[in-house]
Amino acid sequence: MARKVDHIGILVSNLDEAIKLYKDCFGAEVDKIETISEQGVKAAILSLAQGANLELLEPLPGSNMAKALEKRGEGLHHITFEVDNVDKELSRLSERGIELVDKKSRPGLEGMVAFIHPKSLRGVLVELCQKI
Amino acid sequence: MARKVDHIGILVSNLDEAIKLYKDCFGAEVDKIETISEQGVKAAILSLAQGANLELLEPLPGSNMAKALEKRGEGLHHITFEVDNVDKELSRLSERGIELVDKKSRPGLEGMVAFIHPKSLRGVLVELCQKI
Repeated sequence: MARKVDHIGILVSNLDEAIKLYKDCFGAEVDKIETISEQGVKAAILSLAQGANLELLEPLPGSNMAKALEKRGEGLHHITFEVDNVDKELSRLSERGIELVDKKSRPGLEGMVAFIHPKSLRGVLVELCQKI
Repeated sequence: MARKVDHIGILVSNLDEAIKLYKDCFGAEVDKIETISEQGVKAAILSLAQGANLELLEPLPGSNMAKALEKRGEGLHHITFEVDNVDKELSRLSERGIELVDKKSRPGLEGMVAFIHPKSLRGVLVELCQKI
């Protein structure tokens, strides 16, 4: 079961420009910028005064994410729910017939994460995260 | 400036099935279900234990939202930021050259709302809301 929405992932073509836009328009502040090679992105976590964060994702050249950007364009990419135990949730969802992208949790930007396949969730790519 | 992410809007083809899915998979509970004729949707607000809500949107037949569903399929639709004063934010954004869908706020499901055009926000449809 999900505790809350941790962040919303947004695919962008240029991280610096997107950070400036979200700062100017909505007052979002950068918490962290990091390259996550295994996910093929340079990512920035932006926070607002309260609540869920925004994660801006600029694909690394030649990555699957770069192909996704080329095909679908910029925009909302995924939603991340914080859970107590990612692997326990993966087992529970799998038993219900939900198709997983990741069969077990792996290290993410801020803890252990795993993705669930959008085809089981009516077109929404969902990430589960467990803070460490 | 945005205070927080109020909710994430998700386009679905069948509200009842989608509610069941988000309840079973993530423990989301229904707060409110309402038909918003002027937006062409039947909407359900779902809450988690904490933080941002989910807004599931089933298009009404013949609406623009029904066309959007046919064209793009189910999935993430918009992100809503809570602000203190929607009309003040619309003026500020407009002065910065941001293109608006709504030139002034109008009544929404839980207060006054207005949409900003995704072409000014790199593919992301943003709604501003002001609780009343």
